[in-house]
Amino acid sequence: MSELEYVVGVDVGGTKIAAGIMDSKGKIIEQKTVPTEAEEGPKAVINRIIDIIYEVLEKSSITKKDVKALGIGMPGPLNTKKGIVKNPPNLPYWDNVPIVRILENELKLPVVMENDANAATLAEYLFGQSKKVDNFIYITVSTGIGGGVITNGKLLKGESGNAVEIGHMTINFSGPKCGCGNLGCWESYASGTALARFAKEGVMSGKKTLITELAGKNAIKAEHIFEASQLGDEFAKELVEKEGFYLGVGLANIINTFNPKLVSIGGGLSNAWDMFYDKMICVMNRLALKANNEDVEIIKATLGKNVGLVGACAIALDL
Amino acid sequence: MSELEYVVGVDVGGTKIAAGIMDSKGKIIEQKTVPTEAEEGPKAVINRIIDIIYEVLEKSSITKKDVKALGIGMPGPLNTKKGIVKNPPNLPYWDNVPIVRILENELKLPVVMENDANAATLAEYLFGQSKKVDNFIYITVSTGIGGGVITNGKLLKGESGNAVEIGHMTINFSGPKCGCGNLGCWESYASGTALARFAKEGVMSGKKTLITELAGKNAIKAEHIFEASQLGDEFAKELVEKEGFYLGVGLANIINTFNPKLVSIGGGLSNAWDMFYDKMICVMNRLALKANNEDVEIIKATLGKNVGLVGACAIALDL
Repeated sequence: MSELEYVVGVDVGGTKIAAGIMDSKGKIIEQKTVPTEAEEGPKAVINRIIDIIYEVLEKSSITKKDVKALGIGMPGPLNTKKGIVKNPPNLPYWDNVPIVRILENELKLPVVMENDANAATLAEYLFGQSKKVDNFIYITVSTGIGGGVITNGKLLKGESGNAVEIGHMTINFSGPKCGCGNLGCWESYASGTALARFAKEGVMSGKKTLITELAGKNAIKAEHIFEASQLGDEFAKELVEKEGFYLGVGLANIINTFNPKLVSIGGGLSNAWDMFYDKMICVMNRLALKANNEDVEIIKATLGKNVGLVGACAIALDL
Repeated sequence: MSELEYVVGVDVGGTKIAAGIMDSKGKIIEQKTVPTEAEEGPKAVINRIIDIIYEVLEKSSITKKDVKALGIGMPGPLNTKKGIVKNPPNLPYWDNVPIVRILENELKLPVVMENDANAATLAEYLFGQSKKVDNFIYITVSTGIGGGVITNGKLLKGESGNAVEIGHMTINFSGPKCGCGNLGCWESYASGTALARFAKEGVMSGKKTLITELAGKNAIKAEHIFEASQLGDEFAKELVEKEGFYLGVGLANIINTFNPKLVSIGGGLSNAWDMFYDKMICVMNRLALKANNEDVEIIKATLGKNVGLVGACAIALDL
């Protein structure tokens, strides 16, 4: 039996940094999470990244010479070919930071970077499902919508690692302008943020709904809508139905565009899977091209909150 | 110097079948075109395909033993893994025809099939442009909209060869139902057919326009609209402006989805390139994600009407 290899992964988000060590079987043997404190800017965040890497190494029995590579998942936009983080909306003051070179110089290890959605995609592909497929898509639906595509067994990266920005495909050019500059983006209809916005608009226009009570003094969130719907609230039920419709519209686009065999949907909203699944699939079946639709199966993602860290490790393993 | 290899290509369309022989430098050394007479059904069409292959071989100095492979470009939907033509709308009576096996049995040659848009994409990628890029997209805008994607130097095929049905991505879910079953498809806004439909709707609602005169007793076509626009017709100018807008909306989606380096646009409407280019690019620049937009260049395709045949040969060369 061949010896196990080890990789280190770091998942950098706007609020948290998670680092961990994974063996080549996909088992996380050590991990730690710290706040990003992104407002302190790139230098402080990078120092925190380096510190947390040394901490997980120290806590484990693995020494740096047993580590094959470091994988890092970052919010886009990036230039993965050049190892540069451009200017992610949730990482203030970052502007073309050559993070791969910085980390390689510090750690004396090969470093590979992907955007967080691509890393998560590789994680769900390699460790989140057991089907032998070459054409796989992961979609995360939470405050925004992101995803990644495995085509012929490999991540679809595009020219600089920014492919598959599926949250920002127009599904209605007459729709609202998105923060990204595009019109009627999928995520401005089907994300958790959009769902909450539709609820607020209803409440503002005088709808009587349990959603208001469930939210109380807090801002309305997607979870309040799903809870109200389960309690029989008619307006919440309508909103969940619409959510299923918008998810189905985007899924049909994705299926027509990529002809995948398997699509795995994760992110916060997948917790309410049973509530929107039927509508989503019904709309997708009606809208997608028959030949493409026949090929595809839609499943719920399995890795949950750890998907980012597993993904960061997976891109190092995949190196 | 190594000896030249030869391939045979056949491009099968709803109205014409073109066959040709290409050398490994991309030069077509013999070619012939016959009508498809698709209404006679698959058996007759396949016999015609076989006949035309033998004819081009006979006319050339190439014997079958000098031929490396046969490439065949077919209208989708297909199952390229199984070598099966499903049920293309423009090939009546075809229903899961195992054309690859039939041709291999008859010709005793390796046969490889792709959908026509993928074949054309490979042709424009290999022989239509001289830039060294790994991430390339070809879009054809004519009566419909189709295209193909080269990612990391390879055709993006999906599970059964039906990926990149970009004409059938929804750009407006409140839009008209397309023949494919989907809502507000890109091709129902930006194809030549759509452009002519918008013109007809204007004329029906009483618009005074040169388009009517230019069409005369014939049905209004995209070319009449471009001609009227050049002659200063205000309604035609508006329609061309809208065409540029819809092309830009779809392009932004494609750029966000694939992060390409180079996009080549062909098909009948590209003849009016100068008339819609500025608007299309302006809309694309405004809507696409900045990082993805910075990477991309948009060019006019160069191979023209021969792109299908060159593509069919190219897929055999690429085998």
